[in-house]
Amino acid sequence: MAKAGKKAANKTAKQPAVKSAPVKPAHPKPQADDAPIIALNLPPAKLSPAMAAYFKKCQDKLGFVPNVLLAYAFDMAKLEAFVAMYNDLMLGDSGLSKLEREMIAVAVSSQNRCYYCLVAHGAAVRQYSGNPILGEQMAMNYRAARLSKRQRAMLDFAVKLTLSPWGVEDGDRERLRRAGFSDRDIWDIGAVAGFFAMSNRIAFASDMRPNTVYHAQAR
Amino acid sequence: MAKAGKKAANKTAKQPAVKSAPVKPAHPKPQADDAPIIALNLPPAKLSPAMAAYFKKCQDKLGFVPNVLLAYAFDMAKLEAFVAMYNDLMLGDSGLSKLEREMIAVAVSSQNRCYYCLVAHGAAVRQYSGNPILGEQMAMNYRAARLSKRQRAMLDFAVKLTLSPWGVEDGDRERLRRAGFSDRDIWDIGAVAGFFAMSNRIAFASDMRPNTVYHAQAR
Amino acid sequence: MAKAGKKAANKTAKQPAVKSAPVKPAHPKPQADDAPIIALNLPPAKLSPAMAAYFKKCQDKLGFVPNVLLAYAFDMAKLEAFVAMYNDLMLGDSGLSKLEREMIAVAVSSQNRCYYCLVAHGAAVRQYSGNPILGEQMAMNYRAARLSKRQRAMLDFAVKLTLSPWGVEDGDRERLRRAGFSDRDIWDIGAVAGFFAMSNRIAFASDMRPNTVYHAQAR
Amino acid sequence: MAKAGKKAANKTAKQPAVKSAPVKPAHPKPQADDAPIIALNLPPAKLSPAMAAYFKKCQDKLGFVPNVLLAYAFDMAKLEAFVAMYNDLMLGDSGLSKLEREMIAVAVSSQNRCYYCLVAHGAAVRQYSGNPILGEQMAMNYRAARLSKRQRAMLDFAVKLTLSPWGVEDGDRERLRRAGFSDRDIWDIGAVAGFFAMSNRIAFASDMRPNTVYHAQAR
Amino acid sequence: MAKAGKKAANKTAKQPAVKSAPVKPAHPKPQADDAPIIALNLPPAKLSPAMAAYFKKCQDKLGFVPNVLLAYAFDMAKLEAFVAMYNDLMLGDSGLSKLEREMIAVAVSSQNRCYYCLVAHGAAVRQYSGNPILGEQMAMNYRAARLSKRQRAMLDFAVKLTLSPWGVEDGDRERLRRAGFSDRDIWDIGAVAGFFAMSNRIAFASDMRPNTVYHAQAR
Amino acid sequence: MAKAGKKAANKTAKQPAVKSAPVKPAHPKPQADDAPIIALNLPPAKLSPAMAAYFKKCQDKLGFVPNVLLAYAFDMAKLEAFVAMYNDLMLGDSGLSKLEREMIAVAVSSQNRCYYCLVAHGAAVRQYSGNPILGEQMAMNYRAARLSKRQRAMLDFAVKLTLSPWGVEDGDRERLRRAGFSDRDIWDIGAVAGFFAMSNRIAFASDMRPNTVYHAQAR
Repeated sequence: MAKAGKKAANKTAKQPAVKSAPVKPAHPKPQADDAPIIALNLPPAKLSPAMAAYFKKCQDKLGFVPNVLLAYAFDMAKLEAFVAMYNDLMLGDSGLSKLEREMIAVAVSSQNRCYYCLVAHGAAVRQYSGNPILGEQMAMNYRAARLSKRQRAMLDFAVKLTLSPWGVEDGDRERLRRAGFSDRDIWDIGAVAGFFAMSNRIAFASDMRPNTVYHAQAR
Repeated sequence: MAKAGKKAANKTAKQPAVKSAPVKPAHPKPQADDAPIIALNLPPAKLSPAMAAYFKKCQDKLGFVPNVLLAYAFDMAKLEAFVAMYNDLMLGDSGLSKLEREMIAVAVSSQNRCYYCLVAHGAAVRQYSGNPILGEQMAMNYRAARLSKRQRAMLDFAVKLTLSPWGVEDGDRERLRRAGFSDRDIWDIGAVAGFFAMSNRIAFASDMRPNTVYHAQAR
Repeated sequence: MAKAGKKAANKTAKQPAVKSAPVKPAHPKPQADDAPIIALNLPPAKLSPAMAAYFKKCQDKLGFVPNVLLAYAFDMAKLEAFVAMYNDLMLGDSGLSKLEREMIAVAVSSQNRCYYCLVAHGAAVRQYSGNPILGEQMAMNYRAARLSKRQRAMLDFAVKLTLSPWGVEDGDRERLRRAGFSDRDIWDIGAVAGFFAMSNRIAFASDMRPNTVYHAQAR
Repeated sequence: MAKAGKKAANKTAKQPAVKSAPVKPAHPKPQADDAPIIALNLPPAKLSPAMAAYFKKCQDKLGFVPNVLLAYAFDMAKLEAFVAMYNDLMLGDSGLSKLEREMIAVAVSSQNRCYYCLVAHGAAVRQYSGNPILGEQMAMNYRAARLSKRQRAMLDFAVKLTLSPWGVEDGDRERLRRAGFSDRDIWDIGAVAGFFAMSNRIAFASDMRPNTVYHAQAR
Repeated sequence: MAKAGKKAANKTAKQPAVKSAPVKPAHPKPQADDAPIIALNLPPAKLSPAMAAYFKKCQDKLGFVPNVLLAYAFDMAKLEAFVAMYNDLMLGDSGLSKLEREMIAVAVSSQNRCYYCLVAHGAAVRQYSGNPILGEQMAMNYRAARLSKRQRAMLDFAVKLTLSPWGVEDGDRERLRRAGFSDRDIWDIGAVAGFFAMSNRIAFASDMRPNTVYHAQAR
Repeated sequence: MAKAGKKAANKTAKQPAVKSAPVKPAHPKPQADDAPIIALNLPPAKLSPAMAAYFKKCQDKLGFVPNVLLAYAFDMAKLEAFVAMYNDLMLGDSGLSKLEREMIAVAVSSQNRCYYCLVAHGAAVRQYSGNPILGEQMAMNYRAARLSKRQRAMLDFAVKLTLSPWGVEDGDRERLRRAGFSDRDIWDIGAVAGFFAMSNRIAFASDMRPNTVYHAQAR
């Protein structure tokens, strides 16, 4: 039963445009789920020295280059702007912990049902928290997680901003302040929620596929 | 970082009503996520002989009793009716494979964001298919999976029935027939989608929590 | 005018698959609205002794067999599971009166615009309450009814569970407790709302048609 | 059971502002459902001669004055403008039959869940068509009715205009033309749908209550 | 760049049915945006003496006849009923200032995205208020305007009535009373919101185009 | 009337946190609508040399520094990343004209009702196109504009990506290709739509206010 089911599920029903993923030659056999990386035919450009170094650093530290970077690699200006904004936002100085920023990323991506971001950032929540269940909860329904008041207020704001941004007003900011967030923190919550509003849509526009390796990380 | 994050995430922010889970004494220490099983105070009734045998069979075959059964165990008439309907629908004879029925269960539960059903039936999709990624895709966005036309039509019907049942008409049934489904299969797709429309809501009404063991299964 | 209008309205625009309704031979001529009962070609199975007795009891007490039972009669396991769950839920012991359970059934079915359930259970609300207007209000907009606080809280919970189940949390259960409901009652409200989430969808999947006789009952 | 249920249902939970209904003195005892007519305290003005004659005509022909007219009777300019527009639209010359206009009224009011308009115009559909079931179907889900292609196209347009007016474009008008409607008919469909978009909202703003007598008409 | 862009934007992609606009002969050359006025072929009728006088008054006072009047001019009964209701509602005696009524008109039309009403009544808000920015805010998002509590409550009610009329209940009316509105004012807020629910839909049904002149007014 | 109305509209009902706007000293008196720029208290950082030069260039070319830049100026890393991404996306090389990119910006911001972006980028559409009406149409309802097939397809994709990104699939990309767009163009449409999904949300999170000067530009 299971075997037959697997075959049916793996049968590729539609054939998107091909995009080579030359940075991952070590993979013994191509995986159905991360090749091609996107459904747009955008041949990779020559990496700038900065980006070549950055890709090497990814390969060394993570063992792979995240597919979103490969997807952007058709144009160095776009890739560098994306990397600069991402690294500042998700890894730079903030009143929000890195875990909290990843929790926002996943809760937002869950509302938009973004496969790429749920897979890649769900893994990050599992890793940062050491709690695989928390990663599942962010991806499935953040309300199911038993969160502190601070984190619940943070995610409520991020999700309202995702679903009905027009309704975010002074009262919503006030609720965050009462939960202990500074005005700078409020900016950061908004900026992370906004960044994934963008990334989710670029992923859907291009049918971006996450690296298969994420699925098994930190389970 | 990760350690601190984990602590924050584990701090139980709200304390639901307690429900003992006496069938799982082997668990060395209580897990945050599956105790109490529901947020309603419903003391377990004495199991009928049929249900005692069934619980024993679960324990023997799965190594645990699914929490949904423990949740229903406050009333034997309700438990037996649920078990009868569930077993006929998900395990009985059908033109849909067991995997396909579980795929419907998860795709429907994803629309409703039902934590219990996504965890329990996501594990079932991973197990039946032998494909962990397929389980993730059903839970995140079934459109991200590379499905056969048959399975895509099946899930489109189930999801339409979930989100805008009033719009399901002859044309929708006709599309299923063209994808190779018999009238009996159409009934079964509708019945499985309907069953999880019910189960999702009972899970939300009671804040039902899945057995922790599901999370790691078949990854 | 009226006569011409009637003709136009009765002209059957699309011809669904045929399903005989052999239990209602007394009907002098077939009615447009309840034949065929469903738009799926599912020949009736031989009734099990229990179900034959049950159908006879329906015929004796109600004067007809509800079409939902005829629809399920293609498979005895399905029919028996449905009947067991239905009878326990809607007629068994509960802190909710039978009228209250029917009010939930109709308010939920109104959100989903389920023709079958609105007709059949709208009649039940009219009968149990002796108040035809209450039946109309449940079908049209339960907020228009001048309800007790208890019943309003009950229906608000059931309708929230219907429309945005993911948003049902501890606060919602607490509101029910403050309105006088026990935890067991909360389960029952959720279970009835869930049952009609299921039934509505099975009715839409199969285009189930209510017995014409309901329309005139208890006006 | 039924008796107790009825009492609970009749217990008026909230007490809206009072509005006398002096035109209906013959009613032996005040009915819960149509007194007060609206939840706004708007004392009736002196009827203009034209409106006095019109109310008398209603009383003579229908046996009662529709509550919407009593609700508007606090201001003769408003009442007269409403009556002029209503009578032209619903009773004047048109390529749509009076039944078809009432079908639009009910299908639109069903989307908005307007209790007043569903009760009053549901009765009109039953009367014009001589088909009580058609009235129920318009109020519950117009898609459940077995309509001619012409009437289905008409209601699809009216309901789209109700739910997502911004999406109505040339293609929608073209579909009506292909179903046999003239440009003048298209205006009329839009005008009737628009009129009930207005009336539904005035009814909700004021909590308007239909005359009880409608419920039993033409069943 | 700009020039090329303009050409592309002006290229009329679809050609609606023609409707002459004989009252505006002074226009030196036809403007792309207000000819034809509607996408329905409805030849103008002979103006009644009252309407001829009214059109002349528009021409004298405004310098043009609003296109909505030309659109209705195919039928004198409809035109006269529309004019009577409009003038009473928007220009007659009321506890709401004319500016407030226009603010409701624009905030409602913004929810429905009605091009005709946003252009024509946006100009009216700019004119009555002497504040071009207020006009933009009503058209874009009324929550962005820094309003008095009274006006905010008024628009919140009107927009709720627009988007989810079924949810308007006693509490909503009570909020208006607390913000200083009389019961008569509440009727008027509901009536203006309702009127534009209607007008927006008639504009969409007919693809009504505003007079070009509005765009530059009171900037 | 108008004068009284204006006063009421200008009365600031709620007082957001203050943010000085030191780059615009030439303004004779503070305008209600663009001071403070955001409702978060984020003191400006010292401009980096690159950003000081960029602000000077804005001042010289536009006569003002766009408020979004002042809002970001509390943190040079964030400001520089934003500027780099914005300039590449909206002003860099692309198969989409600058006008087309601004049309996407406004059509997306209209769906989200973002006051800041509608004002600032609505002005840009008016300027690039030389067609004030086109700017209004993008802000009000892009379907009201008489667009080429190419531009209509472009905006349909961008708006679908805005409202239901999960539904964007191969068929949507295929439609763009048939309308003449290259795969690189498709990326750019997605990237611009995504960028404003982000910017809209940052504007709502911070209550960002546009420079008053935009309102009168290119009318």
